[in-house]
Amino acid sequence: MAEQKKAAVIMGSDSDLPVVKGAITTLKGFGIAVEAHVMSAHRTPKQACEFAASARKNGFGVLLAAAGKAAHLAGVLAAHTTLPVIGIPIKSSTLDGLDALLSTVQMPKGIPVATVAIDGAENAAILAAQILGVYDEGIAQQLQDMKNKMAQEVIEKDKKLNELIETK
Amino acid sequence: MAEQKKAAVIMGSDSDLPVVKGAITTLKGFGIAVEAHVMSAHRTPKQACEFAASARKNGFGVLLAAAGKAAHLAGVLAAHTTLPVIGIPIKSSTLDGLDALLSTVQMPKGIPVATVAIDGAENAAILAAQILGVYDEGIAQQLQDMKNKMAQEVIEKDKKLNELIETK
Amino acid sequence: MAEQKKAAVIMGSDSDLPVVKGAITTLKGFGIAVEAHVMSAHRTPKQACEFAASARKNGFGVLLAAAGKAAHLAGVLAAHTTLPVIGIPIKSSTLDGLDALLSTVQMPKGIPVATVAIDGAENAAILAAQILGVYDEGIAQQLQDMKNKMAQEVIEKDKKLNELIETK
Amino acid sequence: MAEQKKAAVIMGSDSDLPVVKGAITTLKGFGIAVEAHVMSAHRTPKQACEFAASARKNGFGVLLAAAGKAAHLAGVLAAHTTLPVIGIPIKSSTLDGLDALLSTVQMPKGIPVATVAIDGAENAAILAAQILGVYDEGIAQQLQDMKNKMAQEVIEKDKKLNELIETK
Amino acid sequence: MAEQKKAAVIMGSDSDLPVVKGAITTLKGFGIAVEAHVMSAHRTPKQACEFAASARKNGFGVLLAAAGKAAHLAGVLAAHTTLPVIGIPIKSSTLDGLDALLSTVQMPKGIPVATVAIDGAENAAILAAQILGVYDEGIAQQLQDMKNKMAQEVIEKDKKLNELIETK
Amino acid sequence: MAEQKKAAVIMGSDSDLPVVKGAITTLKGFGIAVEAHVMSAHRTPKQACEFAASARKNGFGVLLAAAGKAAHLAGVLAAHTTLPVIGIPIKSSTLDGLDALLSTVQMPKGIPVATVAIDGAENAAILAAQILGVYDEGIAQQLQDMKNKMAQEVIEKDKKLNELIETK
Amino acid sequence: MAEQKKAAVIMGSDSDLPVVKGAITTLKGFGIAVEAHVMSAHRTPKQACEFAASARKNGFGVLLAAAGKAAHLAGVLAAHTTLPVIGIPIKSSTLDGLDALLSTVQMPKGIPVATVAIDGAENAAILAAQILGVYDEGIAQQLQDMKNKMAQEVIEKDKKLNELIETK
Amino acid sequence: MAEQKKAAVIMGSDSDLPVVKGAITTLKGFGIAVEAHVMSAHRTPKQACEFAASARKNGFGVLLAAAGKAAHLAGVLAAHTTLPVIGIPIKSSTLDGLDALLSTVQMPKGIPVATVAIDGAENAAILAAQILGVYDEGIAQQLQDMKNKMAQEVIEKDKKLNELIETK
Repeated sequence: MAEQKKAAVIMGSDSDLPVVKGAITTLKGFGIAVEAHVMSAHRTPKQACEFAASARKNGFGVLLAAAGKAAHLAGVLAAHTTLPVIGIPIKSSTLDGLDALLSTVQMPKGIPVATVAIDGAENAAILAAQILGVYDEGIAQQLQDMKNKMAQEVIEKDKKLNELIETK
Repeated sequence: MAEQKKAAVIMGSDSDLPVVKGAITTLKGFGIAVEAHVMSAHRTPKQACEFAASARKNGFGVLLAAAGKAAHLAGVLAAHTTLPVIGIPIKSSTLDGLDALLSTVQMPKGIPVATVAIDGAENAAILAAQILGVYDEGIAQQLQDMKNKMAQEVIEKDKKLNELIETK
Repeated sequence: MAEQKKAAVIMGSDSDLPVVKGAITTLKGFGIAVEAHVMSAHRTPKQACEFAASARKNGFGVLLAAAGKAAHLAGVLAAHTTLPVIGIPIKSSTLDGLDALLSTVQMPKGIPVATVAIDGAENAAILAAQILGVYDEGIAQQLQDMKNKMAQEVIEKDKKLNELIETK
Repeated sequence: MAEQKKAAVIMGSDSDLPVVKGAITTLKGFGIAVEAHVMSAHRTPKQACEFAASARKNGFGVLLAAAGKAAHLAGVLAAHTTLPVIGIPIKSSTLDGLDALLSTVQMPKGIPVATVAIDGAENAAILAAQILGVYDEGIAQQLQDMKNKMAQEVIEKDKKLNELIETK
Repeated sequence: MAEQKKAAVIMGSDSDLPVVKGAITTLKGFGIAVEAHVMSAHRTPKQACEFAASARKNGFGVLLAAAGKAAHLAGVLAAHTTLPVIGIPIKSSTLDGLDALLSTVQMPKGIPVATVAIDGAENAAILAAQILGVYDEGIAQQLQDMKNKMAQEVIEKDKKLNELIETK
Repeated sequence: MAEQKKAAVIMGSDSDLPVVKGAITTLKGFGIAVEAHVMSAHRTPKQACEFAASARKNGFGVLLAAAGKAAHLAGVLAAHTTLPVIGIPIKSSTLDGLDALLSTVQMPKGIPVATVAIDGAENAAILAAQILGVYDEGIAQQLQDMKNKMAQEVIEKDKKLNELIETK
Repeated sequence: MAEQKKAAVIMGSDSDLPVVKGAITTLKGFGIAVEAHVMSAHRTPKQACEFAASARKNGFGVLLAAAGKAAHLAGVLAAHTTLPVIGIPIKSSTLDGLDALLSTVQMPKGIPVATVAIDGAENAAILAAQILGVYDEGIAQQLQDMKNKMAQEVIEKDKKLNELIETK
Repeated sequence: MAEQKKAAVIMGSDSDLPVVKGAITTLKGFGIAVEAHVMSAHRTPKQACEFAASARKNGFGVLLAAAGKAAHLAGVLAAHTTLPVIGIPIKSSTLDGLDALLSTVQMPKGIPVATVAIDGAENAAILAAQILGVYDEGIAQQLQDMKNKMAQEVIEKDKKLNELIETK
């Protein structure tokens, strides 16, 4: 296999960092090299377009884009690259994230965005790891380990539940 | 006053033409010079961005942008110009145009899009005429005439209504 | 060019002031003369209609109207003027502003309202400046400067991001 | 009791007539004098406001207003009268009538509109009859007869159902 | 005119009282006799139906019904009376009142409910006064006075606005 | 086990029969005795309430109720019985069945309605069979057979798919 | 009658316990044996499927499943059993529970889920009791007693209302 | 690079084939080996789970899952594999695909689904190609060629537009 690809995490505003941080941490947890940026589809479109256009040759394998409201960031990045772009719709002060979700997922024919749940930054990171793990047995194994650990945690919680119910 | 500015009507796909045509006709009816284009925020972003970036110096005074689904076109144009951009959300095969409406109107701080009703191409043209008519008494007079004519038509219909009700 | 036109900022209730204030400040920042009013489509319709009907001859170039719930204010003003009217839907205690958005943007044929995002008062002011700036190079230059400054701020934040991520 | 009051049925456009006609017929069926008009909150606001302002002294007891999209008609009438105004939200080509419903029902404090179902013109007429029937035993009796007849029809249909099920 | 009719204010649960109280106070302010009840379409259907069925002969002229979630109360009352029934949809912990609005307003043919805004208890009271005021000049005059007073308050606020803006 | 209970299928209007018929057929297919009725929560409330109140002693084990718009039928039945009531929200001409869904499912505390998908009459019948099958091994076996058959059909379709793809 | 069946209460995450607890308490109040579990359609699908598949032979008569967001738990359980499955959509941090409601109720043909209101855990328990009570006169009697008690409570509150209104 | 991975296209029902076919054709156009299946999360859960669980070792690199209504298929597959799963929400007869969209995209933490637009089967295929193309220069080049061709088509349409406008 070729050298491992990096992941880029782009957010439309630094106010998205509290949500997006989870994606960065999760990606690093998989041992994936991450580059994080604040870039705006509307305020720094040139930077965003250039970043996307050169992402493949700069060693990236997947781009994650988080934005709220009329969330165009993921779509704008996707317009400039052939790499998979993962869109994270961010909930803002009105409409509960529905605007960001529809602006991100309802992409026209030809330019897909792989959309995750509203504020679903950690799932975006796991999806990025799955994408990089298609041809990478190491990442695939980590994903399987994480899956097993999640299952184990639920099983533990199930065991403790009766206790919880009685003491609550 | 300086030489009269032109209006540009940009559509994301030629399939939008049946709706958008009304805007072109209405603008020409006001004697406003119109240039129409098919340009896509996602498939020809470079063309769209360059068009917007040079629109002011090319003699345009207002841009109209029609797009459906995750409708980024108006926002992408607005990111590249200081001219007012009017967004026309287009209804497509699902969600009844709500996706296009939210993707167009919910723009983040700093980059407004003047949004009209879903499929409201003619209103977009009237709004464009109002914008160009702020400093142009000729257009302003035409808008007033149109307003008077619309009122007159409603008054005529009101007169004919009893007739209509009885014969229907 | 003729003398610079003024902007009017109309709010349906003084409870809208915390949101609307941003529009007034932003307009003044562009050096645009502003007149602010509380006028209600439903409680003082006569005042609202008369204000709109005489706005052009009183030196206004654009009207901004902010209202919540069944937000008719912008539409009522637009019915009485040939000037562009910008609608700011205000979020109230139920439905997250969707009622105000649809009541403002879905105007019938003939009477457009240039609608911005829910609670998007500052964007309404920028749009007003864009409209007044179509034939005014001074305002156009300020809009370009603001655009450049916004870009610069995002670039600065991008630079500081890694720092932020590590210290957070 | 004073002389019986008339009902006014106002529609924003003559294209609403197919829906609104049911209200006129139903009102006449109750022996209530009806006056029907095409008047637009946006295209003939003066006519609409004056009609509402003089409705009480012209012998009207209730106003019905039908409009689609950003349906302001009922609210504008209600702003100019102390008579009850019944709003009929009309479904148009997008958003399935939700825009008209919210624009009609979500009125701000002080100016209520008695809203019925989307396209619910006949129910608006029955509500008008109920309002005029508060102090009118003749109308009240007719309403009770209609209620009894509706019940009887359902009971008949219930009887025929098994038949229907077997032959269908 | 016959003796003045009373208004009944029915709420589905005493937890609705904080919202509904405004209706009771407003009705009393018009000098209208009010009877308030907690009655549930689902938990005390018999009481609710009997109350509605005998409301006319017990001297009531209008019923107000407030309920949340799958708000059936107004519709159930309307099924048992020929008096006008005003529905007040109450916002509860999920869906922002949309469930109560649709459950109240979308009544099938034959049984209208005069629906006001979500949590619009005071408007329901004003609508009730308008209904009782169709044939009652005293109430009509009070409604006109209230309208004038509301207008005056807006005019006062408009005067104080510049002050407010500068000191805020 | 006691004698097998019957199922009642109640529809608010005979216009619901095309959708509801599937429930009747499906129930009969399980060998469950069915009684079908047209009864309206609003037009024949007395009949509906009495039917529900005596359903248990008349040998019914489960009630199915189908209604559109402000669909109160299932809730009204549930208010009068301790039997499980299954609600089938029916799509009508506006709002795509969302009004019926919310009016049926969002029942207040104390009076549940077991709601199935919009127009989901056949699933309502299967749910009724599951309910009657809790203590009835015969029905339980039929449900298992139906499940196996459904699985088998999907497996058959899967086998034929490649063929289908190539010939289509 | 055969030995009384147990109820299972399954939650997708232990964070659902505060809402779900009400169901457990209510079921125990009816004297119904309850087994509670944390099982996830996505993180422990094997456990969930096996539990459902063997539920009938393990003495369960009804399954309750609570989950939020893309709430698949109830549907996944229903796929593996012929017992009735009650779905409780849980409101999470975005979209106010609409995602969980639609994911739970809109089940495809063949596999119904008996859905209750968003966060309606207690109603789910009552529905479970109704289901187990179809052939169990003891539970049926308790349900009737609960109904009577609820009615009595509303009647008490109605009596105290005038007091409440005056002292509030 | 390891041997090229296959793509699996799973649909919940063969009625989804008209929409899903586009994905199969597009994938084959990229030279990607495709295996198509009808498998249901609810009717053949065992087949679906086993397919997903063994997909990686059977040479698949990405799974596409299309389903309507309470669309659980993609989520159920994702629960059983560490490969990326792409969800295609299918519009069905009610709610315009919103139910399928929310059921697919709003996945809980730990189990992402890469969701595309409602009925966006071709975009799902392009996204799959992007994922398989991260480490595959051949696919990457084809994606770039497709992008260039799409741009060229828009540019051609733009050139022909004036012609179109005049002859239409």
